[in-house]
Amino acid sequence: MSRITKTARVLTLREDGSSRRRDDVLAAEEPLEIRVVDRPFSVTMRTPGDDFDLVAGFLVSEGIVSRAEHLPSMIVCAGERPGDSTYNVIDAHLAPGVPLPDLSLERHVYTTSSCGICGTASIEAVTKSSHFPSSDDPSSPSIELATLLALPDRLRAEQAAFERTGGVHAAGLFSLDGELLCLREDVGRHNAVDKVVGWALREDRLPLRDTVLQVSGRASFELVQKCHMAGIPIMSAVSAPSSLAVDLAREVGLTLAGFSRGRSVNVYAGALRVRVPQREHAEAGVN
Amino acid sequence: MSRITKTARVLTLREDGSSRRRDDVLAAEEPLEIRVVDRPFSVTMRTPGDDFDLVAGFLVSEGIVSRAEHLPSMIVCAGERPGDSTYNVIDAHLAPGVPLPDLSLERHVYTTSSCGICGTASIEAVTKSSHFPSSDDPSSPSIELATLLALPDRLRAEQAAFERTGGVHAAGLFSLDGELLCLREDVGRHNAVDKVVGWALREDRLPLRDTVLQVSGRASFELVQKCHMAGIPIMSAVSAPSSLAVDLAREVGLTLAGFSRGRSVNVYAGALRVRVPQREHAEAGVN
Repeated sequence: MSRITKTARVLTLREDGSSRRRDDVLAAEEPLEIRVVDRPFSVTMRTPGDDFDLVAGFLVSEGIVSRAEHLPSMIVCAGERPGDSTYNVIDAHLAPGVPLPDLSLERHVYTTSSCGICGTASIEAVTKSSHFPSSDDPSSPSIELATLLALPDRLRAEQAAFERTGGVHAAGLFSLDGELLCLREDVGRHNAVDKVVGWALREDRLPLRDTVLQVSGRASFELVQKCHMAGIPIMSAVSAPSSLAVDLAREVGLTLAGFSRGRSVNVYAGALRVRVPQREHAEAGVN
Repeated sequence: MSRITKTARVLTLREDGSSRRRDDVLAAEEPLEIRVVDRPFSVTMRTPGDDFDLVAGFLVSEGIVSRAEHLPSMIVCAGERPGDSTYNVIDAHLAPGVPLPDLSLERHVYTTSSCGICGTASIEAVTKSSHFPSSDDPSSPSIELATLLALPDRLRAEQAAFERTGGVHAAGLFSLDGELLCLREDVGRHNAVDKVVGWALREDRLPLRDTVLQVSGRASFELVQKCHMAGIPIMSAVSAPSSLAVDLAREVGLTLAGFSRGRSVNVYAGALRVRVPQREHAEAGVN
């Protein structure tokens, strides 16, 4: 059995009072400690698997690396005794010349000294930290509406763990004509996206200009940020976006779609990148 | 309009190429900086509203406070100029004698010095940090199966923002006979639970021994941890639990239910606390 799922004994109780014992398959969740040059940087609760991708993508999201050569190696830390490794601590080595992140808590928590943190400040921080500026042309690259609408079904069809556990998020990176490039699953939606981005970094494909990211759940500020940091121009979610996700997408010129349900989709930002045959929606006033 | 929702212009595209412009209601998401005695401690992306509850509950979850008197006041920080407050920075004042949290990043990221973080270590950290030991009697307090099965519908009926946005999580604290005590909503599931726990701290109701927490989504390790820190003996989720959520619930003697769907529910831990009329399920072997 892979570490992506675990089994647990469960008692199903029905309203009529009947019950059944069985083994249920659960999404595995374990902590991963991410170290940078041998110092603790972050701990995330994640589904084990593709951990090097997760670490690489996390470091892209944090603005620390943006090319494969920035991250020459990652090692799984051994435990205190031989054979003791839990595979839950990974140390990332940075190439010479790549600045180490500031490891003070205040920097980590809060990047400016002014009192008055707000959505605008968060958006400014993301905008400044990206290695990849947005495309100047809001209509390029673009995707056919039919291709965009098909992505949630494609994602679900490819998802391995969800069918068994009902408890994981998925993120799928597709080419603009709908070819699946990379799919990752995790109990944490941000981890699934980091795993995709980390895969791309390690393949040295950043920035991901001609791609679209489809996610299985909602679109938060954090997911839009991760797309922006990786240069992904189009993100589509099965469920709702948050207000700040929309604000950030508009600010950085990213196309953000939500409630993508096969027959229709809501476009909250960057609608010019969605090509609708025989219709002009460019005048619809959503940019 | 409250700050819980915001409107955004959206373009709905249908597969036939037709489109419609309208205003959509989104769940608001903004950063909240939590300070402890004037030092930055954490930033969370949250739905504005019930922010004092959120801060109080976060400090309970972190093991810093456990009684109302530990937290004599919280203030919203003003901005740099008069009238500049964004309501997004809150400073928590601790009572004399309440130890300040260690604000070093290493402590924050990682509480032990050994290499080899694992689920067991995480569970041990939670067990050691709780102010409220678990009940020794695994069958007390208890809840009727019918009451437990009714909670998701009760939660949905009381949810205000979800109907409008489709994009928020809810956590509802109920008495063991199904009376709603506190409902909170947030774009982040952990925030919704922190808001409920913080409400209880401020009402000086901790530990919440005779209550059940119903959550709208999945059950992660973190949510079980928050219940344990607040002394909540029973947690029920509409969707799947993770493996580590089940492990932690079993370790601390918390009853954990998942896939609660009106007619049936899965009990992963602490099944003795669910009373099933005219059936004996105690021998079912799920503890």
